[in-house]
Amino acid sequence: MTQNIYDDPDFHAAYLRLPRSVSGLDGAPEWPSLRAMLPALDGARVLDVGCGLGWFCRWARGAGAGSVLGLDISARMLAGARAATADRAITYAQANLESAVLAEGSFDLAYSSLALHYIAGLDGLLAALARALVPGGVLVASVEHPAYTAPHKPGWLADAAGVPAWGLNGYLDEGPREVDWLGARVVKQHRTVAGWLAALGRAGFTLARLEEWAPSPAQLEKHPEWVNHRQIPNFLLFAATRA
Amino acid sequence: MTQNIYDDPDFHAAYLRLPRSVSGLDGAPEWPSLRAMLPALDGARVLDVGCGLGWFCRWARGAGAGSVLGLDISARMLAGARAATADRAITYAQANLESAVLAEGSFDLAYSSLALHYIAGLDGLLAALARALVPGGVLVASVEHPAYTAPHKPGWLADAAGVPAWGLNGYLDEGPREVDWLGARVVKQHRTVAGWLAALGRAGFTLARLEEWAPSPAQLEKHPEWVNHRQIPNFLLFAATRA
Repeated sequence: MTQNIYDDPDFHAAYLRLPRSVSGLDGAPEWPSLRAMLPALDGARVLDVGCGLGWFCRWARGAGAGSVLGLDISARMLAGARAATADRAITYAQANLESAVLAEGSFDLAYSSLALHYIAGLDGLLAALARALVPGGVLVASVEHPAYTAPHKPGWLADAAGVPAWGLNGYLDEGPREVDWLGARVVKQHRTVAGWLAALGRAGFTLARLEEWAPSPAQLEKHPEWVNHRQIPNFLLFAATRA
Repeated sequence: MTQNIYDDPDFHAAYLRLPRSVSGLDGAPEWPSLRAMLPALDGARVLDVGCGLGWFCRWARGAGAGSVLGLDISARMLAGARAATADRAITYAQANLESAVLAEGSFDLAYSSLALHYIAGLDGLLAALARALVPGGVLVASVEHPAYTAPHKPGWLADAAGVPAWGLNGYLDEGPREVDWLGARVVKQHRTVAGWLAALGRAGFTLARLEEWAPSPAQLEKHPEWVNHRQIPNFLLFAATRA
């Protein structure tokens, strides 16, 4: 069972103050890279797995999607998402993503932004997504990068030259990690890069693209406070095709 | 131009004392994992890129390969390889791997153990391998893992709990790294995981399997001195198919 931390009132309030909550997709520095992995959306039936405040659902409609279903475990997030649109082609539904029941072959695109690394029962969810997609359908997703999720005691150290170095250990030990984030104890699931790809393969997906995202030099110039984020990749982005 | 450190007399002498030089494939703890990625070899025409002392070339013949070509930049390593067999179906040739000329469609398997991370001109070599393989031919290779090659000042630090942590930085900056190994200054090429996969894709390969290798719990029991090697993956192993 995946933790529903987004319905914790204090966590939720803190989350709403993040740039990606205030500014939506434009507040998410990895969005241009993720967007570049998307197929054409004209008329597409889109599923957003962990839709949060619904920023992508609304964007997808603007980009031509015929219909969008946004799923999230958090009632608070869905309330925010519903309040932000009157578009009747967007449906929001509360669901424990691990056991979501989806009609077979009913979507052209499954999208997920920074949600899958919370999912303990990933195999079941990926199998459900593969069934829910039409043949040739695409899954585009971002997750926290395994180098970032691996340590049991995550933190920045310093190398022999005094340069910030991420203390990487525990990489091979897949499983839950509890970290402090936004004043709460958040449970994530660590998987290796190979583990993510193997899970996609088991569900019948073929990897089309993989990116290890970090801020571009241009983004770094605008946000010098992100300098450490060039040292290790923040996010793993992938596109995979259902056979 | 790739460094030819293996022809340095002192480095070569030190390399010959490593377990994988003394005991061959059985001295390489990642070998069982790499072997599991190989296709059936009966009658296969095999290319070994960076064959070193020829342990794999001889094993491949024992496993049924019809012929084996072993390429290496090092004359000293090839002399050792040649001295170890009288098998006329094994050919050894000295080559700068980046500019090796190989007949089109003349191999069923290209194999490379811990050599490709020395290659600066990887795109040219992978394109040559794709051309040299028959359609459906397979490339199976191991390289040092990007987490391992990334830092400019590699070393073990300690996390907040005192547990050894690899100081990871420089990950996004692909390019040469100079490290001290076996008393020499060795030049390797750092690439991200995504960078390795993108290079395979550019050359026309489709990824079939990816493994981030670390010692198994059973191996660790036999070699407790490898304990740090469970913290980060040592090697990236992959199998890819030529379209």
